Amino acid sequence: MAKKNEEFVTQIASRQENFPQWYTDVILKTDMVDYSDVKGCMVIKPYGYAVWELIQSEMDRRFKETGHVNAYFPLFIPESLLKKEAEHVEGFAPEVAWVTHGGEEKLAERLCVRPTSETIICSMYSKWIQSYRDLPLLINQWANVVRWEKSTRPFLRTSEFLWQEGHTAHATAEEAEAETIKMLEVYREFAQNVLAIPVVVGQKSEKEKFAGAKATYTMEAMMQDGKALQMGTSHNLSDHFSKAYDITYLSREGKLEHCFTTSWGTSTRMIGGVIMVHGDDRGLVLPPKIAPIQVVILPIAMHKAGVLEKADELFASLKAAGLRVKVDDSDQSAGWKFNQWEMKGVPLRLEVGPKDIENNQVVLVRRDNHEKLFVSMDNLADTVKDLLDTVHTSMLNRALSLREENTREATTLEELKEGVQNGFVRAMWCGCRECEDAIKEKTGATTRCMPFEQKQISDVCVHCGKPASKMTYFAKAY
Amino acid sequence: MAKKNEEFVTQIASRQENFPQWYTDVILKTDMVDYSDVKGCMVIKPYGYAVWELIQSEMDRRFKETGHVNAYFPLFIPESLLKKEAEHVEGFAPEVAWVTHGGEEKLAERLCVRPTSETIICSMYSKWIQSYRDLPLLINQWANVVRWEKSTRPFLRTSEFLWQEGHTAHATAEEAEAETIKMLEVYREFAQNVLAIPVVVGQKSEKEKFAGAKATYTMEAMMQDGKALQMGTSHNLSDHFSKAYDITYLSREGKLEHCFTTSWGTSTRMIGGVIMVHGDDRGLVLPPKIAPIQVVILPIAMHKAGVLEKADELFASLKAAGLRVKVDDSDQSAGWKFNQWEMKGVPLRLEVGPKDIENNQVVLVRRDNHEKLFVSMDNLADTVKDLLDTVHTSMLNRALSLREENTREATTLEELKEGVQNGFVRAMWCGCRECEDAIKEKTGATTRCMPFEQKQISDVCVHCGKPASKMTYFAKAY
Repeated sequence: MAKKNEEFVTQIASRQENFPQWYTDVILKTDMVDYSDVKGCMVIKPYGYAVWELIQSEMDRRFKETGHVNAYFPLFIPESLLKKEAEHVEGFAPEVAWVTHGGEEKLAERLCVRPTSETIICSMYSKWIQSYRDLPLLINQWANVVRWEKSTRPFLRTSEFLWQEGHTAHATAEEAEAETIKMLEVYREFAQNVLAIPVVVGQKSEKEKFAGAKATYTMEAMMQDGKALQMGTSHNLSDHFSKAYDITYLSREGKLEHCFTTSWGTSTRMIGGVIMVHGDDRGLVLPPKIAPIQVVILPIAMHKAGVLEKADELFASLKAAGLRVKVDDSDQSAGWKFNQWEMKGVPLRLEVGPKDIENNQVVLVRRDNHEKLFVSMDNLADTVKDLLDTVHTSMLNRALSLREENTREATTLEELKEGVQNGFVRAMWCGCRECEDAIKEKTGATTRCMPFEQKQISDVCVHCGKPASKMTYFAKAY
Repeated sequence: MAKKNEEFVTQIASRQENFPQWYTDVILKTDMVDYSDVKGCMVIKPYGYAVWELIQSEMDRRFKETGHVNAYFPLFIPESLLKKEAEHVEGFAPEVAWVTHGGEEKLAERLCVRPTSETIICSMYSKWIQSYRDLPLLINQWANVVRWEKSTRPFLRTSEFLWQEGHTAHATAEEAEAETIKMLEVYREFAQNVLAIPVVVGQKSEKEKFAGAKATYTMEAMMQDGKALQMGTSHNLSDHFSKAYDITYLSREGKLEHCFTTSWGTSTRMIGGVIMVHGDDRGLVLPPKIAPIQVVILPIAMHKAGVLEKADELFASLKAAGLRVKVDDSDQSAGWKFNQWEMKGVPLRLEVGPKDIENNQVVLVRRDNHEKLFVSMDNLADTVKDLLDTVHTSMLNRALSLREENTREATTLEELKEGVQNGFVRAMWCGCRECEDAIKEKTGATTRCMPFEQKQISDVCVHCGKPASKMTYFAKAY
């Protein structure tokens, strides 16, 4: 048995030795995703899609609680419509897929497959919004989008991906800014309390901001290889799009005014983040809130009288308590099952055998730290729920510790360069594009954000030595 | 007030005078949908999308209860992959949108925007299925699809629409047939118990079946203008796709065998059916199970002390009971509100004013038949739930009566022609394509299905007079 287990585990590369290979091994071997016949497009397999469904459900509830409703806008955007906002089209045109033919006929105008939907949504808002009474307009869309990428990796960067995009219109610049910040906070709270991922929140540089935005805010997470993953962004579009697409309203005072709009998005990319923040050399470690199976029940010596019945009974009671549970009563060996469900990242393994039944107990094994607990069958659902909460908190804290251990402050370029080899670096930056580009060229790191939580590390830019007032996060990034 | 109401209602064409115009008026004026800048593509507005979300939730639960899981496959299909199943590509090629460029570059191979996903999904199943242990494979996808349509109408026929498509693989022909029939039954039960729409279920003719299928089963509903709407289809694909895409498995006996596959789909088209089956000259009449708002509370004389408080109290108690409720405390007139929420199809209007509060009662008005009930505030949630069930049953029965009244049996072509002017006709058909085409040309009606519930109306074909054993439904159709 021991040998078999070992073989099984060694199918996954070690994170230490080859992090990219580890990632690929994990996503493929756990049936999260598969490559397709279409270059750069992924197939999200049922296990991976179940994670996405749980993410959707948690996010959607938060959007609705903050007053947003869902709608659906067309996949295609006529070229002329896309081109109305100059910065926007410049940013997205190089990565757009173009439809040129419908059936046998050549189209009079090319259609772009949406890379994001500001243009089509703004053209509708222009029709829908007439008066201050129509504001704010708070709409979200769950959809697929396409960005023609040269180099792709499942979940992290694919030509097609699934996402949500919020698009709101407001009467004033202040309201638009407040919405932008509010939705970033919804994302941050979601990342922390659902994904168990601590994130740094702040503002993107001019270079890194969304094409067409006045300001882009972001949440950035540290992966176990020290690189940053942008997990979600929220854009204050000011009146840029409302001027390009003519979104106006009649104010209370009877004056025609331009609206102020925002947009904000998160995608299946977050699943890649979950994998790279929490996974270990045995495979996935899923946060309980988005684990398709939260508890896997393994009946031990299941041919013995009463074992399967007890497993089914426990299944029924945990399920009735709202938990996502599975009994594995397949004819595989116990060792195979241990490995299989560990690899799949199920937060808790519940073992129950003849001895346990005698003692009115079960064995619970935590996926995150392998801790083994013997607990009473009485009030089992409550025990399990509490333990899942504990697992969540442990995972969050461990990720937070890892980030803190690997975040340094730098006052010289050398320190910055060294720090971004395996983590984040906080440093002062003058804010100019030249320094940003030079730092990237010299260290491989990009500006991730100017965090809301500021600290004056020094008075001068880490690169040019000129006065600098903004502390900035630098990191290599996905 | 009376005049204002009247004006408001006359914005909608009468069904009797102009059914197509009535449909267009209703969907636009109730904010279900809007036209977009993209030819043939619709925008599903929040109110319409909320209906779709409720449909999705009810269907998705049924799919999962019958053992299916969700996954996501790419939007694009390489031309070579599409072409592998000859009948399939012949059926779909004329209505496919083609992507030819990614960014600035011309693609080496054109990509088709999925009109349906058999081809891409089968190519994956070919990889995923190895052994009889992998079967049955039961997957569903919620997605957008594109079919380049010349003549479009929101919900009923659009170039892009939202749908679900189930794709399953089985070890035997019998299992595939059983799955095909089972999922049609899931659809039928859903139409009846959620949409309050009675449907005729049966088999499509060779001409009308899905391109590449061995057999297509369908559910057909009668709209108020007597025309048929195909509400959902389920296809037995036999081994046609598994042979074209090489889906094989090693049997228990160690033999390499081809799988048998099925596919089944329903779409946003169902929303068009709901509108045309239940709507009236005042607007939408939504079945309670998919009404975004089930009860609208109108506080009467709301400036009087205690009225708004009571309305909010009722709102809270109904909401806590799991009902979808809204209080309209806007400063519009009561008459405007009555009309507005009637037009929007809210199943129940709840009025509460000072007198009602005194008498510990509220007034409930049914949308479907305008019945007015005075009921106690005690146990109000239960009363409302029961009443919503009653409304559902009434709507279903009314639709069933209408269908029965407008379904005739014909033994001559004249009778058939007359019958399909405003309804369904049951007639015997020999089954040959020539008669099917001729009947369509002479009467405008197509074969809708050969129903499972058969009856020998006569012994000969209604058109050619040759022996016929299959009773068939004929109708004009959307």
